[in-house]
Amino acid sequence: MYHKESASGSNPTLPRGVLAAVLTPMDEDLTPDHKAFTAHCLRLLAAGCHGLAVFGTTGEGTSLSTDERLAALEALVENGVSGEVLLPGTGSCALTDTVRLSRAALEVGAAGVLVLPPFYYKDTGDDGLFRFFAEVVERVGDDRLRLYLYHIPQMTGIDLGLPLISRLIEAYPGVVAGTKDSSGDRERITTLCREFPDFSVLAGTETLLLDTLRSGGEGCISATVNVTSRLARRVHDAHAAGRDDEAEALQKRLTELRASIEGYPMIPALKRLMAELTGDEVWRNLRPPLSGLDEKRAKDLLSGLPLSELL
Amino acid sequence: MYHKESASGSNPTLPRGVLAAVLTPMDEDLTPDHKAFTAHCLRLLAAGCHGLAVFGTTGEGTSLSTDERLAALEALVENGVSGEVLLPGTGSCALTDTVRLSRAALEVGAAGVLVLPPFYYKDTGDDGLFRFFAEVVERVGDDRLRLYLYHIPQMTGIDLGLPLISRLIEAYPGVVAGTKDSSGDRERITTLCREFPDFSVLAGTETLLLDTLRSGGEGCISATVNVTSRLARRVHDAHAAGRDDEAEALQKRLTELRASIEGYPMIPALKRLMAELTGDEVWRNLRPPLSGLDEKRAKDLLSGLPLSELL
Repeated sequence: MYHKESASGSNPTLPRGVLAAVLTPMDEDLTPDHKAFTAHCLRLLAAGCHGLAVFGTTGEGTSLSTDERLAALEALVENGVSGEVLLPGTGSCALTDTVRLSRAALEVGAAGVLVLPPFYYKDTGDDGLFRFFAEVVERVGDDRLRLYLYHIPQMTGIDLGLPLISRLIEAYPGVVAGTKDSSGDRERITTLCREFPDFSVLAGTETLLLDTLRSGGEGCISATVNVTSRLARRVHDAHAAGRDDEAEALQKRLTELRASIEGYPMIPALKRLMAELTGDEVWRNLRPPLSGLDEKRAKDLLSGLPLSELL
Repeated sequence: MYHKESASGSNPTLPRGVLAAVLTPMDEDLTPDHKAFTAHCLRLLAAGCHGLAVFGTTGEGTSLSTDERLAALEALVENGVSGEVLLPGTGSCALTDTVRLSRAALEVGAAGVLVLPPFYYKDTGDDGLFRFFAEVVERVGDDRLRLYLYHIPQMTGIDLGLPLISRLIEAYPGVVAGTKDSSGDRERITTLCREFPDFSVLAGTETLLLDTLRSGGEGCISATVNVTSRLARRVHDAHAAGRDDEAEALQKRLTELRASIEGYPMIPALKRLMAELTGDEVWRNLRPPLSGLDEKRAKDLLSGLPLSELL
């Protein structure tokens, strides 16, 4: 049972700063490669990531079965990735899957869970969406739960509007703890930071990292951080130290790097980059409906990027 | 392993005629109620349905975990519903879930499986979609597989275009056996029937039942058939017997009945009707994000329908 009283209040372990939306390396048979996955997570932490959002859009989370997500999560923790830095995607169209995945995330000590709205049915209204998230909180039934609303309408076709977010925060203060906002809408992010001061706002792209931090948000969770984490961390640290001009210059370079990748299908492009940067063929595999980048586009991508600045 | 040669040729057990997109009754804790589910399936067959498409959009299939779908499928067959009449929805964003569900459907002797395209990622292109369905066929690896492509762009945001369908039929003739087309687009259905004569075309609404049969299609799979199966069957039988005027008159009445329900959220309205018609409270429960019809709208719905003509 969820207890309103004990869940509220600030939580120092809440995800903040630079989080990678971690790619999931897969074997040739398209099974997550736990060894390469762990190595990549540890490398991202060493490169400056504060946290790791695994099994999000970039991590092909919805392309994995619940059992596959559970096995990969357990493998990460067993192999030395601390649960505290993890923000696993536990979203699913099926309430029962989200509950099962969220409980498992708590069991490994995850900092929070990133939850998509159920994305099959459209136009079900705020009441249905509220009821979904409320059932997740009630069924997980653990005051340690920190639920992040994952707003990515270009994939889900679902708008998590401010009235719904407000209603969820009011019902479950401290537990409905934040959001990853992948709308790319600077205005919306600023509004969220202003309207909900005790709610953690993380932008879905590092292009908005400095803007979000300046608006009082917590940072970003981004796909491209798989290869830009060192620079993204420097933006964060310069801002935290009050070195505004430096932060701005670094953000400009970070935005340029991101822009060099944005013209390509994001997940195929990032996996192709990882294959190049690590020399590991495991990065060439994607689960359908995603496909690898064709060689012509891969060549364009690689020739347009300063590889030594990445990873 | 899939063998091209042995899969082709006509299959007398392919689903055809009037199929219900079966509702899934749920207990108060939102678990599928196997007893009420079986009773409903047997009642639909007794009322004239040729087949039962369980776990589709109407059956809240994507709101159930894979384990829940498997348990409900097994319960149906154990309790006396013949596998031959079943066309279970086995679609999922996760390839491995679709494979597991499709294998289980074959194990209970299902006539076929109804497979959504993976619906999280958008704009991945025909190559990615082709690869998804191809991997399903290859991984199920059973010549008895009869895969129906489930086209419902208003939920999935994915267009299964004719070039993709053509490519799949060519790669897996007889195995990629048909489609449920929920576009509501009469022209598209006619084109599918004409372009792919050995491919089973089932319309997603009984409004198009007679049109589809006259175009050479196989029939319909429809949500409202949960309550209109007797009349829908009479349309089918009048057409089959060449009684064209009678078929047309019956279709007109069937279309009117459907129209009386179409102004309401479909699945909530149908569950509310089932609660009224059976007196069983189990029909009042829906998994979020779906919600029950509010009482005012329920009253409108019930007062506008000739309940004695239904079920």
